[in-house]
Amino acid sequence: MSLVKRNDISFIGCCASYEDAKTVLFGAPFDSTASFRPGARFAGPAMRTESVGIETYSPYQDRGLEALSVFDAGDLELPFGNAARALDAVESFCARVLDDGKTPAMIGGEHLVTLGAVRAAASRHPGLSVFHFDAHADFRGDYMGESLSHATVMRRVWDLLGDWKIFQFGIRSGTRDEFNLAGEHIKTERFKASTVRDCALEAAGNPIYVTVDLDVIDPSEFPGTGTPEAGGLSFTELLSAILCLSESEIIGYDICELSPHYDHSGVSTALACKTLREMLIAFSGRVL
Amino acid sequence: MSLVKRNDISFIGCCASYEDAKTVLFGAPFDSTASFRPGARFAGPAMRTESVGIETYSPYQDRGLEALSVFDAGDLELPFGNAARALDAVESFCARVLDDGKTPAMIGGEHLVTLGAVRAAASRHPGLSVFHFDAHADFRGDYMGESLSHATVMRRVWDLLGDWKIFQFGIRSGTRDEFNLAGEHIKTERFKASTVRDCALEAAGNPIYVTVDLDVIDPSEFPGTGTPEAGGLSFTELLSAILCLSESEIIGYDICELSPHYDHSGVSTALACKTLREMLIAFSGRVL
Amino acid sequence: MSLVKRNDISFIGCCASYEDAKTVLFGAPFDSTASFRPGARFAGPAMRTESVGIETYSPYQDRGLEALSVFDAGDLELPFGNAARALDAVESFCARVLDDGKTPAMIGGEHLVTLGAVRAAASRHPGLSVFHFDAHADFRGDYMGESLSHATVMRRVWDLLGDWKIFQFGIRSGTRDEFNLAGEHIKTERFKASTVRDCALEAAGNPIYVTVDLDVIDPSEFPGTGTPEAGGLSFTELLSAILCLSESEIIGYDICELSPHYDHSGVSTALACKTLREMLIAFSGRVL
Amino acid sequence: MSLVKRNDISFIGCCASYEDAKTVLFGAPFDSTASFRPGARFAGPAMRTESVGIETYSPYQDRGLEALSVFDAGDLELPFGNAARALDAVESFCARVLDDGKTPAMIGGEHLVTLGAVRAAASRHPGLSVFHFDAHADFRGDYMGESLSHATVMRRVWDLLGDWKIFQFGIRSGTRDEFNLAGEHIKTERFKASTVRDCALEAAGNPIYVTVDLDVIDPSEFPGTGTPEAGGLSFTELLSAILCLSESEIIGYDICELSPHYDHSGVSTALACKTLREMLIAFSGRVL
Amino acid sequence: MSLVKRNDISFIGCCASYEDAKTVLFGAPFDSTASFRPGARFAGPAMRTESVGIETYSPYQDRGLEALSVFDAGDLELPFGNAARALDAVESFCARVLDDGKTPAMIGGEHLVTLGAVRAAASRHPGLSVFHFDAHADFRGDYMGESLSHATVMRRVWDLLGDWKIFQFGIRSGTRDEFNLAGEHIKTERFKASTVRDCALEAAGNPIYVTVDLDVIDPSEFPGTGTPEAGGLSFTELLSAILCLSESEIIGYDICELSPHYDHSGVSTALACKTLREMLIAFSGRVL
Amino acid sequence: MSLVKRNDISFIGCCASYEDAKTVLFGAPFDSTASFRPGARFAGPAMRTESVGIETYSPYQDRGLEALSVFDAGDLELPFGNAARALDAVESFCARVLDDGKTPAMIGGEHLVTLGAVRAAASRHPGLSVFHFDAHADFRGDYMGESLSHATVMRRVWDLLGDWKIFQFGIRSGTRDEFNLAGEHIKTERFKASTVRDCALEAAGNPIYVTVDLDVIDPSEFPGTGTPEAGGLSFTELLSAILCLSESEIIGYDICELSPHYDHSGVSTALACKTLREMLIAFSGRVL
Repeated sequence: MSLVKRNDISFIGCCASYEDAKTVLFGAPFDSTASFRPGARFAGPAMRTESVGIETYSPYQDRGLEALSVFDAGDLELPFGNAARALDAVESFCARVLDDGKTPAMIGGEHLVTLGAVRAAASRHPGLSVFHFDAHADFRGDYMGESLSHATVMRRVWDLLGDWKIFQFGIRSGTRDEFNLAGEHIKTERFKASTVRDCALEAAGNPIYVTVDLDVIDPSEFPGTGTPEAGGLSFTELLSAILCLSESEIIGYDICELSPHYDHSGVSTALACKTLREMLIAFSGRVL
Repeated sequence: MSLVKRNDISFIGCCASYEDAKTVLFGAPFDSTASFRPGARFAGPAMRTESVGIETYSPYQDRGLEALSVFDAGDLELPFGNAARALDAVESFCARVLDDGKTPAMIGGEHLVTLGAVRAAASRHPGLSVFHFDAHADFRGDYMGESLSHATVMRRVWDLLGDWKIFQFGIRSGTRDEFNLAGEHIKTERFKASTVRDCALEAAGNPIYVTVDLDVIDPSEFPGTGTPEAGGLSFTELLSAILCLSESEIIGYDICELSPHYDHSGVSTALACKTLREMLIAFSGRVL
Repeated sequence: MSLVKRNDISFIGCCASYEDAKTVLFGAPFDSTASFRPGARFAGPAMRTESVGIETYSPYQDRGLEALSVFDAGDLELPFGNAARALDAVESFCARVLDDGKTPAMIGGEHLVTLGAVRAAASRHPGLSVFHFDAHADFRGDYMGESLSHATVMRRVWDLLGDWKIFQFGIRSGTRDEFNLAGEHIKTERFKASTVRDCALEAAGNPIYVTVDLDVIDPSEFPGTGTPEAGGLSFTELLSAILCLSESEIIGYDICELSPHYDHSGVSTALACKTLREMLIAFSGRVL
Repeated sequence: MSLVKRNDISFIGCCASYEDAKTVLFGAPFDSTASFRPGARFAGPAMRTESVGIETYSPYQDRGLEALSVFDAGDLELPFGNAARALDAVESFCARVLDDGKTPAMIGGEHLVTLGAVRAAASRHPGLSVFHFDAHADFRGDYMGESLSHATVMRRVWDLLGDWKIFQFGIRSGTRDEFNLAGEHIKTERFKASTVRDCALEAAGNPIYVTVDLDVIDPSEFPGTGTPEAGGLSFTELLSAILCLSESEIIGYDICELSPHYDHSGVSTALACKTLREMLIAFSGRVL
Repeated sequence: MSLVKRNDISFIGCCASYEDAKTVLFGAPFDSTASFRPGARFAGPAMRTESVGIETYSPYQDRGLEALSVFDAGDLELPFGNAARALDAVESFCARVLDDGKTPAMIGGEHLVTLGAVRAAASRHPGLSVFHFDAHADFRGDYMGESLSHATVMRRVWDLLGDWKIFQFGIRSGTRDEFNLAGEHIKTERFKASTVRDCALEAAGNPIYVTVDLDVIDPSEFPGTGTPEAGGLSFTELLSAILCLSESEIIGYDICELSPHYDHSGVSTALACKTLREMLIAFSGRVL
Repeated sequence: MSLVKRNDISFIGCCASYEDAKTVLFGAPFDSTASFRPGARFAGPAMRTESVGIETYSPYQDRGLEALSVFDAGDLELPFGNAARALDAVESFCARVLDDGKTPAMIGGEHLVTLGAVRAAASRHPGLSVFHFDAHADFRGDYMGESLSHATVMRRVWDLLGDWKIFQFGIRSGTRDEFNLAGEHIKTERFKASTVRDCALEAAGNPIYVTVDLDVIDPSEFPGTGTPEAGGLSFTELLSAILCLSESEIIGYDICELSPHYDHSGVSTALACKTLREMLIAFSGRVL
């Protein structure tokens, strides 16, 4: 009988040390700007605990997590109620991971945390594109007077990257202004994600950051989120889209907006774990 | 800083006065004949409160609620436990709305409340047809001895309108007798809603009342209802069917059987709000 | 007014006596080896109580439960925490039912209980095949040192029946070893159930036992289970597969892994009831 | 192994036949006049199913249910949405039980059902008193124009029995008018139930009907009810009050307003079962 | 039949206009610094909606809300994720109410919002004392580096008011440092609230602001809060304490930390409504 | 910014190494013999995660967890569905802890796991007494034919320790036989825990094992358990009883039967954490 401590709760199969790791998984437990239903801050611990319910092996890709080298760094300590400082902390952490030659993989948190990661990536990877899966355009100039908000995050990314560097998929909610402005500056596929492969070809040769707001998935498959929006992708459609990117040069990625307190049956957390497993496997191709 | 009262909770974007309104939205909070799980009486307040989580703009129709003139009258006061009096109150309210040249849009309540609205419409619009989306045929002669029941509502509508005036879609539950009788007097599409456009052509030139029992949608997308029935329509299929009717002469409509207390994650209420937004936009075409 | 006792809660429409019955429905409330989330023991009472929410008539098959002769024997008394003894009790009960010339229809419980029923069937029906609908391969040699487990049940069935007698559908989770081994000894269709008709032809002339682990259905339609796994069948797909088997020689069947405590909205229990109704009607063809 | 049907779900320990029974337990599943949150109709099945979680033996009274002769007749079939007819059915059933020399013990339903039982009792037992445990006075003349309502039930009882025949305990909610009127016609103890023994002495020699609206108990101990009202009795206080009546001539009694759908943890149903056990034992003294 | 809009959801009985009002009720929907479980932002709408379940009349004080003049201003619009700006908005609103000679009554929100109200009150009422009911001392210097936090709010109040102006009751959680520091600067009653009357005498002649963090109540009676802490006051004890202050000069007050999403049975919201009714009645004595 | 792994989720303040530890906390996640509602297996992880919501400092004892030396070993790996093997594993782990001169502190699991710990303690500490807080006597000879069950655990302890070595408190449920037999062999205080101090004096000089089945607490304060039983202790009463034992020679202890899946609001888990904190502090007196 061993007395090794069994309290280390990492995401299943993520057992590398930081030094050996090619991918660094971490959580960004921030949800203070959520306008409707908060709770995404609890996603990291929930996913780690529930990840024992899935296998490490993917029958879709015929590969397992053990073959990768992933270090799970746990959740960052972020100051609630101070978006600017929280983004700085995310950026700073990602910067170190990138500077050490590793790939950051972030568990949000509300979608705003993506901005911190993209800042770190953009300053190190000129020509960066962002592939964005979401139900909402997130392209407002401000939200109730605040420029840093889950509803403005892609607008801030666009401030940073400029025109035609953002590729959106699954978008089915936004104001008329958001849709109009997006049409002039970024690529937005409404309702579906059938153009991912074409967009990946268009972006070929450039580094890509992938951000998945899980509410891109239909609420029937993913109820555990703050702003459910009917008419979304199925898990299978999202998975296909992710696999389309497995040949691209993914230099960082995240999965956001699981809100476990609204996931009474546990299906959303289980789906998030499975999606993260597939992303970890698919996006490790470049670095292995 | 304004001191305008902020307690007025209308459905999002429904800000016209009664006088200016072309459409009058109201709730019929009655569920006393529910045989299985009551709670549809809470749908109105729940939908108004949660409607802030959707946008007023529809990317499906490229139109917004603001452009319409909708007055939200709130919920009627209906006597619990007295179906006959409750139906009279619904009929009386709809009658006034119709006599004022406006379109009534009702939030149920259990499906029985539709009978009150159809009574008002039928006496003012000869040749009225009813388009009926539902999982259940609702075509019994009586239910446990009561002729006024959620399970008999379309039979009572048929008493009123006669043969071949009712068009049913998505029906997947009923007794053998209901299906047999329906086959002789009304049009029933089982399981799907693929014939809506054809039926709309068949009814062209006649006024139409549309009633949506939300349990027509699959329980995976809409769990928050009293009698979930597997094998239903997707939101996308229902939306397509609704859009098929945007050229018809819709003189009244309703959306019934959201039971918020069974909607633990909130996805059903969100879907109901989005469906109502699309109905309000699609069915305002005639009057604008 | 009658004073007949109204406390007899059988599955709807299952009102035959044991003597007259052609099918004997019973529950096997055992879930002690569940590794993740227990509760399948509560499926039998939950399904009986909630079965009043469905009709006895199937519009899919145009037949009703009343025309069949089904006796609902209630739940067996099984010793919690002792898998070997529980399996013996299931086997013994099924043996008696089979020896009396009737068809056993079992409501699990966790999937391990299937082994008891298959033991009874295999010793009476040489050449038995098993049709297995599931998200998980359940083909491990042991699980945490125990050979009797929900995760090993099909391996134990294979010990009993030998090569190429098991036909799996919908499998989307397992270890690499399970998938590899399954590929050499049994037929496994991954992700879908499109080959059921072909497999039924292949097995024609042989007796068949059908086991449905309800987690084969996508968690969006069936959240109320211990180990939800995204990317599953729809109810409609499972129903089609079941109807493919209505001409086969089904000598026993079960439906497992409904865990009502995770079914907060009631949709999973309702779906399980409807699925059981369709199985009872489809699989009675041989004996009627 | 027996093949006796195990689907008979009676309240634990209530295994007498109707003929042998001294007490007849039955359910009155009616909640159509509930103004706030319905669901009391589900109390009977919930209490029967969950009663396996308590013992039949009371360590408080050192007696067990088996020693009594209780027949559990199941739930009556009551017409939803028609209060007058539902009350007739309750009255008719109680009348037969009383005429057969047995004691009716009713599981509500909303509190209105008590009126049916009291009607039957009053016409057979001149001088009847009613002991009423409740958070609410239930003494309105009408409620939204309806004279038959959960909020008027004790007023209707007073119409029947006249002045000073009603003894209320635990009342902590009502309009000023209700409290004023009650003060002139009935005995009302506010907030507590410390005068039960004195009232029992005052009523000695007269037959008594006892009605327990379970919301008399503090919501901390009994959350599962439609209208929770803080500041109530503890279970221990209610139990003491019940035991004070064990020497009285109880000729009928009920326990109302458990609403299982609001009892997420199960504690309210368990408390209701335990309270009913204690009532069955305490009130059987007269007839044994 | 009236067509008056019925969508105005004010707290029950709060029907005065701003001009006529002596008390101005408003909500401060802010919870961004919540470290554990957010959701207090939803308290205002939940309390208004559920207030129909209580009466306007208090049998404890023999007075009703109608006799008072309360204006319900609805919820303020506060910027999520920016504590400093949110506090400014609360302060500004309270300042106007106080300058108009009215009493502000605030529904939080997390406890930090109290600071905004106290700032407005302190600058207008020299010698202000604060009576503070809470499970937690809230007396930290900073929390994870932030000086504005729900865990520091009373420390900030002390910065403003100085020594011996804060009276705490019911405190049962804090760091050793908080308890030590509190002992030197403010009055802290641990575990109970038995000294309120004495403290009221001590503060007699001075204006008082009362703040109730509802987690002062035991979680058995009030589960719906972010940080439940066992061993608290009963509702009856809190009510007694509030009534002790009815003769004091209360110039403002609040009720905080109801988190409706954790109040699955509704008992916490009902208790909060009842407590607010009693506060509104008790604290109006001075101004009537 | 540190890259120390933050995934080590120990109970708050339990940060010693095994070598330095005086107390070894561990979980025994076994619930296979639960007859009613399983789920106690999830208590350990739930308590560790939620322990961040309490402080490490006890204002009741004016001491903090940091001053103690507690190692949190995590949960043991126990075979589901095999009670005998699970008990062996618990016994073996406790034996090692005791042999290393440390105090085992166990988080159940169902109550049966106590037997494993008592076996290890009894063989090392002659004259061992067991102080047992519970709602249920747990004194059956067997349960459905099984001698190892949560309902028989104290009977098995009595087999081991003999007469008058078990002291029960708070017992309020059991069969008549259990109460009768207990009266002849062990000390049982019904309903309350007012004799703990006297019993501690009676056992003075002997080693004591303390086992707390959390359902001893009233369901109003602790709903999150498998078999809620009304009429229990308050947290304050249990805390007082625990503090009565702080001078005794406690050589091991446990806290059992938290079932987090029934703890919808989180109050039960929070109470369990606070109780464990108080036990860890109170029972460390001997070894410090």
